[in-house]
Amino acid sequence: MLDAAPLSALRTLFGDRLSVSAAVLTEHAQSESLVSAGLPDAVVFPRTTDEVAALARWSTAHRVPLIGWGAGTSLEGHALAVAGGVVVDFREMAAVLEIRPEDRLVRVQPGLTREALNHELRTTGLMFPVDPGANASIGGMAATRASGTTAVRYGTMRDNVRGLEVVLTGGEVIRTGSGAPKSAAGYDLTALLVGSEGTLGLITELTLKLHGQPEAVMTAVAAFPSVAAAVDCVIATMQMGLTPARIEFLDVETVSACNAYSGLSLPPSPQLLVEFHGHPEALAEDVTRFRALAADHGAEGLDWAEKQEDRTRLWAARHAAYRAILASRPGAKAVVTDVCVPISALAQAVEETRADIAASGIPGPILGHVGDGNFHAILMVDPSRPDEAATAKTLAKRMAERSLRLGGTITGEHGVGFGKLGLMAAEHGAAWQVMGALKAALDPLNLMNPGKLVPGQA
Amino acid sequence: MLDAAPLSALRTLFGDRLSVSAAVLTEHAQSESLVSAGLPDAVVFPRTTDEVAALARWSTAHRVPLIGWGAGTSLEGHALAVAGGVVVDFREMAAVLEIRPEDRLVRVQPGLTREALNHELRTTGLMFPVDPGANASIGGMAATRASGTTAVRYGTMRDNVRGLEVVLTGGEVIRTGSGAPKSAAGYDLTALLVGSEGTLGLITELTLKLHGQPEAVMTAVAAFPSVAAAVDCVIATMQMGLTPARIEFLDVETVSACNAYSGLSLPPSPQLLVEFHGHPEALAEDVTRFRALAADHGAEGLDWAEKQEDRTRLWAARHAAYRAILASRPGAKAVVTDVCVPISALAQAVEETRADIAASGIPGPILGHVGDGNFHAILMVDPSRPDEAATAKTLAKRMAERSLRLGGTITGEHGVGFGKLGLMAAEHGAAWQVMGALKAALDPLNLMNPGKLVPGQA
Repeated sequence: MLDAAPLSALRTLFGDRLSVSAAVLTEHAQSESLVSAGLPDAVVFPRTTDEVAALARWSTAHRVPLIGWGAGTSLEGHALAVAGGVVVDFREMAAVLEIRPEDRLVRVQPGLTREALNHELRTTGLMFPVDPGANASIGGMAATRASGTTAVRYGTMRDNVRGLEVVLTGGEVIRTGSGAPKSAAGYDLTALLVGSEGTLGLITELTLKLHGQPEAVMTAVAAFPSVAAAVDCVIATMQMGLTPARIEFLDVETVSACNAYSGLSLPPSPQLLVEFHGHPEALAEDVTRFRALAADHGAEGLDWAEKQEDRTRLWAARHAAYRAILASRPGAKAVVTDVCVPISALAQAVEETRADIAASGIPGPILGHVGDGNFHAILMVDPSRPDEAATAKTLAKRMAERSLRLGGTITGEHGVGFGKLGLMAAEHGAAWQVMGALKAALDPLNLMNPGKLVPGQA
Repeated sequence: MLDAAPLSALRTLFGDRLSVSAAVLTEHAQSESLVSAGLPDAVVFPRTTDEVAALARWSTAHRVPLIGWGAGTSLEGHALAVAGGVVVDFREMAAVLEIRPEDRLVRVQPGLTREALNHELRTTGLMFPVDPGANASIGGMAATRASGTTAVRYGTMRDNVRGLEVVLTGGEVIRTGSGAPKSAAGYDLTALLVGSEGTLGLITELTLKLHGQPEAVMTAVAAFPSVAAAVDCVIATMQMGLTPARIEFLDVETVSACNAYSGLSLPPSPQLLVEFHGHPEALAEDVTRFRALAADHGAEGLDWAEKQEDRTRLWAARHAAYRAILASRPGAKAVVTDVCVPISALAQAVEETRADIAASGIPGPILGHVGDGNFHAILMVDPSRPDEAATAKTLAKRMAERSLRLGGTITGEHGVGFGKLGLMAAEHGAAWQVMGALKAALDPLNLMNPGKLVPGQA
């Protein structure tokens, strides 16, 4: 709860774009996962970088934390005010500032969603391909280093953010990156800030790389006799140097949930949903090669969806998989967790995880962006049974530890937030302390999203 | 000059792998450019990470700087001991530690050269494509965020280093990255360290991404009626979404020098040297499209070199361009400088630079990796005429300032070293102070390559 003087000063800055109403505070204490925290002290809705800078000066003067908020779709509690403070909701900074088709760049504000961006781009021949599933904000996607279905071909936010404008604690505004496609001029501050989860500053503007809309698209779905066969087909695909635009794995539980929820009639087997982008000649060859690989791995009914409506239906079902899975256990809440492993360890990681979940008694379908070794478990718990939530959290922890044993990472794309803070030491060792030193250098008063990502925050 | 006690302690650590001989010190005070500095106090040749860690402890105990040294091919004085200290020559840490073909990864020591690495990989079907021209060390390439001819398709060191082992000041050893293709687990320390030019620590091991050797390769050289026509053809190529593996520009002075030095008979016009990689079907389509674009821009004599020996001869000439240009003015030394601009500004940047050089009276051929907006000028000066060196430095400075005016960067790939230290404030503004704060956090005694990259070092 803010004291009268700081509250009054904040009201002078934001007027009716400051809220302390119970409804607004509660909305900004929600999370997509079981991770939860108390209410923030206030929520503000800035419209300009200058306002964010003034807010940062206010934060330093009054020692009040600031927590950035995009679309509220993160899965590890990134945007929750675990130490109180002011949530900075960027919904009123959601403009496309400049499209530069000749350089394949776009400059946007952080509150813009990826769907709104692609809607703006639809007539340019260009697109922003990073697709984490949810209609997340671009600022949030950068802050969490989001990726998703298309990262296997187009990269993650690490690869697609060219530059940032960032408000640091105390109100200094910096710009990182340049309009040039590459640079060797000093530390890569853009890369340091992408994935820093709001702990080093607040992103107020982003310059993004765009990609050409594909001339031709081929989507296929294929049923495999086993999880291992499907995963081995993915491994063979990547090792052959084929670059699908997406290659998604759905285990049999996910397939059943999607059939029921989205009216598909996929056979009840592990499936791969694959898409290739390119010019027609290259695509034909990719399709031929993938068909042969799939057949080698026992795939049946490899159907290529050449019509836009068929492709849309398949990908809509994939995007609805989370809701489909939740609907398969009415009333359930989900612990959604992800890991990412070396491709060579993918089959083992998926098989061991499936066995672990099966033995737990909790339903937990597995699906994922397997072309880059990244998969998810949706662990469904009855919210009235605390034992199930505890079991789910233990399963998620074992999944992360298994990933580390296999040479992987505790999270491929969901991030750390405070949900995975307890696993950072195991992944990084002494390097985690280095992260803490960098945080202390840029935010000595620990006002930027405290309680997250770095050591000493629990 | 080291005092007796620290020298003795250092000799205990390195025995006869410590040198203070004039010949060895002089060898490690050389640079490929006009940038120069005094002799280091000593040179050591470590064999293990433990030895480097012991060296870092020694450095802290005795307050003696450490400067990493790979192959000595950098162009901005990165590896020169401007504040004295010990040069750490990694030539005895040059092993390939592990090849993991199934994950397309390789683990190497920093002193390995890129040619030696590709020789080791030749039978695996894989390659490490980053090619800065010189046979640089992998550690030096990572430290300077090198790129080169193939970055337009395969990326720079930023994109191809998956993880690092780094010795920090004081001797702490950290590991960054993981075996997984992506991660959202905390700050991207790998990206922070790549391009940090030895100012944050010494790289003792690298895990690199590998790429498949191309199934088919097509190389062509095309003569254009003007610089603008050649550059506009590059812009059109990139905007169409064609992804050449390399697309190099040579101005008419460079062409003449290559003809004379490498026995080519290219017409005396601006040229593009282009290469496509892929499977044969995709390649045929790329070639067709590029042929049409080149014709649209007035190209003549577009010759596709399908035979390996013809391709090798062309690229050997390109790689020899620096020596060819130097040979065109006997006895000259060169200021080799690079900038990188947005593609949309490339024609203007090249034309204005050519005009500026032409007016200066100094010969300065221009060539470069124009697919990503990056080009070089080789400014040749008579070493007996200090006025020429001053003119060359002024031209290089104006080239960097022009790049900034056009939205670019002061260096696309050569880095900062101390040659471009004076331009960092102009490029980064307040963000340069942030780089200084990060440096101070990780190296408070300023023992890691002092005098380079960050503020307050001049």
